[in-house]
Amino acid sequence: MNYDQKKLWQIEQQGFDEQLLGKSEAIMALGNGYLGSRSSEEEAYIGEIRDTFVAGTFNSFDENEVTELPNLPDMWGMSFIFNGRRFSLVNGQVRDYKKRLNLKNGELTREFIWEFEDLKMKFEFRRFVSQARRHLLVSHVRLTNLTRIPIHVKMRSGINGQVSNEGSQHFTDGEKGLVEGKFIQMMPVTTHSKIQIIQTVEHKFNITISERPETCRRSFFMNYDFDLDVESTINIEKRGSIYTSNDKDIEDHELSALRSEGVHELQKIDHLDYELLLQESARVWQKIWEKHPIEIKSENFRDQLAIRFAKYHLHAMAPSHDERMNIGAKGLSGEGYKGHAFWDTEIFMLPYFNFTHPDIAKKLVTYRYLGLDGAHKKAKINGYEGAQYPWEAANPADGEVTPVWGAADIITGQSTKIWSGFIEQHITSDVAFGVKQYIDVTGDHEFELEKGDEILIDTAKFWASRLEYNHALDNYEIRDVIGPDEYKEHINNNAYTNYTAQWNVAFAIKLIEDLRRDEPDFYEKLDKKLNLSVLTENLSAKVDKIFLPKATDGGIIPQDDSYLTKKVIDLSKYRESDGVDSLFHDFNLEQVNQMQITKQADVLLLMLLFEDLFDRDQKLKNFDYYEPKTTHDSSLSFSTHAILSADLGKLEQSYDFFNKAINIDMGDYMKSSDAGIHAASLGGIWQMIVFGYGGVRMVKSRLRIEPHLPKKWSLLKYGFDYRGENISVSTDRKRMIVTKPDNGHEIKFLNKDQEYTLKSQLIISI
Amino acid sequence: MNYDQKKLWQIEQQGFDEQLLGKSEAIMALGNGYLGSRSSEEEAYIGEIRDTFVAGTFNSFDENEVTELPNLPDMWGMSFIFNGRRFSLVNGQVRDYKKRLNLKNGELTREFIWEFEDLKMKFEFRRFVSQARRHLLVSHVRLTNLTRIPIHVKMRSGINGQVSNEGSQHFTDGEKGLVEGKFIQMMPVTTHSKIQIIQTVEHKFNITISERPETCRRSFFMNYDFDLDVESTINIEKRGSIYTSNDKDIEDHELSALRSEGVHELQKIDHLDYELLLQESARVWQKIWEKHPIEIKSENFRDQLAIRFAKYHLHAMAPSHDERMNIGAKGLSGEGYKGHAFWDTEIFMLPYFNFTHPDIAKKLVTYRYLGLDGAHKKAKINGYEGAQYPWEAANPADGEVTPVWGAADIITGQSTKIWSGFIEQHITSDVAFGVKQYIDVTGDHEFELEKGDEILIDTAKFWASRLEYNHALDNYEIRDVIGPDEYKEHINNNAYTNYTAQWNVAFAIKLIEDLRRDEPDFYEKLDKKLNLSVLTENLSAKVDKIFLPKATDGGIIPQDDSYLTKKVIDLSKYRESDGVDSLFHDFNLEQVNQMQITKQADVLLLMLLFEDLFDRDQKLKNFDYYEPKTTHDSSLSFSTHAILSADLGKLEQSYDFFNKAINIDMGDYMKSSDAGIHAASLGGIWQMIVFGYGGVRMVKSRLRIEPHLPKKWSLLKYGFDYRGENISVSTDRKRMIVTKPDNGHEIKFLNKDQEYTLKSQLIISI
Repeated sequence: MNYDQKKLWQIEQQGFDEQLLGKSEAIMALGNGYLGSRSSEEEAYIGEIRDTFVAGTFNSFDENEVTELPNLPDMWGMSFIFNGRRFSLVNGQVRDYKKRLNLKNGELTREFIWEFEDLKMKFEFRRFVSQARRHLLVSHVRLTNLTRIPIHVKMRSGINGQVSNEGSQHFTDGEKGLVEGKFIQMMPVTTHSKIQIIQTVEHKFNITISERPETCRRSFFMNYDFDLDVESTINIEKRGSIYTSNDKDIEDHELSALRSEGVHELQKIDHLDYELLLQESARVWQKIWEKHPIEIKSENFRDQLAIRFAKYHLHAMAPSHDERMNIGAKGLSGEGYKGHAFWDTEIFMLPYFNFTHPDIAKKLVTYRYLGLDGAHKKAKINGYEGAQYPWEAANPADGEVTPVWGAADIITGQSTKIWSGFIEQHITSDVAFGVKQYIDVTGDHEFELEKGDEILIDTAKFWASRLEYNHALDNYEIRDVIGPDEYKEHINNNAYTNYTAQWNVAFAIKLIEDLRRDEPDFYEKLDKKLNLSVLTENLSAKVDKIFLPKATDGGIIPQDDSYLTKKVIDLSKYRESDGVDSLFHDFNLEQVNQMQITKQADVLLLMLLFEDLFDRDQKLKNFDYYEPKTTHDSSLSFSTHAILSADLGKLEQSYDFFNKAINIDMGDYMKSSDAGIHAASLGGIWQMIVFGYGGVRMVKSRLRIEPHLPKKWSLLKYGFDYRGENISVSTDRKRMIVTKPDNGHEIKFLNKDQEYTLKSQLIISI
Repeated sequence: MNYDQKKLWQIEQQGFDEQLLGKSEAIMALGNGYLGSRSSEEEAYIGEIRDTFVAGTFNSFDENEVTELPNLPDMWGMSFIFNGRRFSLVNGQVRDYKKRLNLKNGELTREFIWEFEDLKMKFEFRRFVSQARRHLLVSHVRLTNLTRIPIHVKMRSGINGQVSNEGSQHFTDGEKGLVEGKFIQMMPVTTHSKIQIIQTVEHKFNITISERPETCRRSFFMNYDFDLDVESTINIEKRGSIYTSNDKDIEDHELSALRSEGVHELQKIDHLDYELLLQESARVWQKIWEKHPIEIKSENFRDQLAIRFAKYHLHAMAPSHDERMNIGAKGLSGEGYKGHAFWDTEIFMLPYFNFTHPDIAKKLVTYRYLGLDGAHKKAKINGYEGAQYPWEAANPADGEVTPVWGAADIITGQSTKIWSGFIEQHITSDVAFGVKQYIDVTGDHEFELEKGDEILIDTAKFWASRLEYNHALDNYEIRDVIGPDEYKEHINNNAYTNYTAQWNVAFAIKLIEDLRRDEPDFYEKLDKKLNLSVLTENLSAKVDKIFLPKATDGGIIPQDDSYLTKKVIDLSKYRESDGVDSLFHDFNLEQVNQMQITKQADVLLLMLLFEDLFDRDQKLKNFDYYEPKTTHDSSLSFSTHAILSADLGKLEQSYDFFNKAINIDMGDYMKSSDAGIHAASLGGIWQMIVFGYGGVRMVKSRLRIEPHLPKKWSLLKYGFDYRGENISVSTDRKRMIVTKPDNGHEIKFLNKDQEYTLKSQLIISI
């Protein structure tokens, strides 16, 4: 990938390279939160992963597979035969190849000159997924004949349903047909969840052209034949719409009504050309960009690009239209993690939305409210009470959807059991923490009373049932879990898990008290559901006896009961490796379990999220102890380390983490994004900038703004929403200027332990 | 494709051409009747169709799709990266490319030199499906470094289940693992028919090599890394076995037992190298070749090659091991027609097996006996009695499996309804005819009594219920059908249908009489099932009133009630076209229905199968009338025309049809075999030679041998089994020599209306 200092809104690939197919498909993916699509080339390649997803259309292939986001029939593909030769960039010479994603307007373009035998042609491909019309996809192709002879073109384009999720087919081969002689329409239905999909495609040419429809199994194509004269050009537009019976924005979900919507979507823009449709979509993107823009003056221009990259993708993948779905770990940009939502949402992405798009954040936390039934189901299956949130979540009511089997064990060659769905239980306090953060940042009292408090109490109820009493020590332990460090399975008293569970329980006790006192109506409502008096008693009896791993004499909080007793090995080989699984070329998980190897921030994440529980010295000691034992094999690791090290004044090291974090997707390693971009890491990029360097933090429900810029940065400007107020911060290494509209409201915040009251502007020395 | 006069056992492709992928995959397909596989390249290509089938493992994707032969996870594929560059013949220079199928021993080879940038390498790929061990597949790869630098090789090979039938996935992603550290094993199960598949693969290298197992979804690979020094060579063997819970040759169908069989299959040949395993398989092929070899002295050497091509594929696709399955219209060489059996078996392929491998023929007719329940089911659904055989058949008990929707209509763009499963009813008399032919040729009295007679009577029972009484004419008609000419839908009194139905009914009446008289025990048994006395009455009341279309004044038997009244158009454009659907680029089926356009032999086929019902003059007149109106768009058409025109003395025209028939798969048209080779046409090749030019025929249950060679042929030698006797015929244009072992038995046959009695040898002038 190439990045240009003068083009800070652009991701560019120069030169065609088969090995970059997966990466460019993912990091240049298009989307509007409703639908998302990898940026596969129009023409087919070996190794491509051609995906289009509609958020929330989950289906499972069979009873042995968990539900996943199904890959829809492809609408972008086109095949060309020029004078009898199939067009592929694997053949011939490709000159001036540039594939670009314009982050500002969401347009993907691809331009090049192709020479093959006696052919010489110029290609200009453009496409976008509309932000203005969420059901709409538009592409534009311009072919120019630079040959000295006419070129006969055979073009085949339509909708191709001979795609799958790595071999799993989620759709019935539904009806298909041609509407009004020009709208290709396919009507696949998901096999089990029975979601009706309607895909409609239309082609437009600037010349009259002979056409022939062709149905194949799961596909409908139009075949076009035309001549491209010497030095002439042809313009082709392909427009498509997608509707589903799951869509909230339409009332009638009958097949015939959906079919009409699909056609109508294209009919109503018949008078608008590509440019106008693009502008319309760009205007919506512009509104996103105008909301709290971030400006970074850095010696590295990619820092500025990175935050735009992150925000672009966060908005391409976030379902701002519907609270029944969440953000998958790869967004809508790949099949990795099956479109499932993890703690990635609450801990890594939600903060961005809380502080900049509280409307979207509200949808994300509401999704967890809708997930209470699924969480109850999971708790019940596991013999617990309350709300035990699923490690992986799809449809909110489904509960746990983590697959049970994973990749092959290097030693035995057998599939490895994935334990996260059973015992990676911190997700429940993560969800509670996310809800609390949302309420703290937005001050959304209505959500708090109607939904948030219930989540906060019901999760505590789970923990109360989950705690295991240790008679010998007269305390409550949490045994046999996986913490954030997934390289330690079946461990006891993971610090992160125990501390966050204890917080969850303690907070619920206080919340129940507050409700009883201040909101008797809501208290009564919740009491009916959760039997609050009994619950309070139970929580109160346990809360002070929850075992919280204490620091060793050396000041180290043990990651779990046994971690510190395990073997330490030299990890430098793996820490320097780009290949995320290189450790597993040498060891199996069983062996890694027995060594002090940490996949990602675990104790350190705890110290970041609950910074008030640990003093600076403790954080320093633990940072110095754990970080060298961390392989950072999870994309969730670098941003946490970047922020914590910035807090600790290790700004150079922090900036190194920052760069590693932005390189997870934007870097040179060719295969890292094949399964999709790393959604949590995108949220992490925003957090590193605004939390890490901008110094914004919620501590004990109080706002703090305490910037500390990396050496290479001379200026940082950012903004955020805080309890309905629009705050802007501009900071260099000497002072920060905090501004809000002078609307009569006041905001209080902390800086270096001092409380400031912001009315319109404050200038504070650093 | 290239054919070499000196290599009459070889199908060869010279030079790599992406456009020939489908054709070479199909016409060079490997198989042993149990399993069959398209000859896709080891490395992947856009446009490849990578299929492996096990006969009889039918499954349906969902309730909207009919059952089909599922495409198994691929076991041949290998990917190579040489010094960082993916190996593909689309890149670089390919020299001396030769892909060959050796028909004699069933070995596929591929050799070439590949140069790409600084790489120069020699590749020798070999593989076969064993005829000696039906569960075994073996491949051998030899790589030679012709570069001046060492080449680092990354090789990935295993079992890849990310394949489907044009997007429909038939397997659950079953268990997978590594057995004893070296046997890759995958255990997919068909989703609905629940057939357990066990695929096991082992790699062998002539050097020690580093390896790493890798499981992906639906796949298991081994990754190998090694250096190929300058001028050095590496030999790789990949062996695989396939077992299923449907296999009759093993007793225990429990998963663990099947897994052991899969591994054991490879363990027990551990000491045998590729060459020895190939020889073992070649010896079984040799036995096939020694059975009634055909020798043709022709000016066109391809004539000799063609019959070897036909016999090779007939034996690669015929399930000689199991009567619960039949031969699909594309054998095991492609997804076309879903592995379903049609009348192609009885009318086109069965004659070859009747006359040369009666043991296989017996399995094919027994399949129809097992299909009686399915035929009853179909009759019942349609409101009829008796056995109405399915137009398309898969599992015998399933009955009709013809899909309901086909390709897009050129005018409306909507899918076309496929009516064959409902109204192409001549299949029922075709099955009866096939059974009668089998009995006549083999004299298998046991089959006749135990199975054959029941089929012959039960099919007549169907016809009796199917006939429609016409009060005005006091006759029985068969209305609203499709005849062999599928370009005429919903027609009344198709000649082929009515005549063959009448034969079926008349023959059953006689059979019931004979049984009552000669085989009272069997009569009684059948009477219980079929109520023979009532049935005889019913059949007898109708048989003479079945309407048999009579010749016009001009001597033309009307193909149906309305055919002769329809418009005649100039068909030369379509008759000369290679593209089988070119007619449908201009017209839709509705329009073709309204013209005198015939897809394939219809009246003429009737005149060939029931030659005694029509005199020579009638045949000539009808041939001259119908042939010019025939597009020969079905691969079943040319062979019928070749034989009939040979009978009529039109030997030049016949030989022209002969050549067109062999070119259906062996010819230059690149796309004709993409969906698989044309099984019926292969049977047709044998029929053209032995029936057409060798002059063999069963007429009214009597054998006739009456050769007439095409001008370009100077000698024809062939042989056949007849009622347990082994007959050889050698003929030139002057005389024929008919020979049988002098074993005391006598055989009678007709030649020019004279009956001869053969004891050991007869020489007859022509």
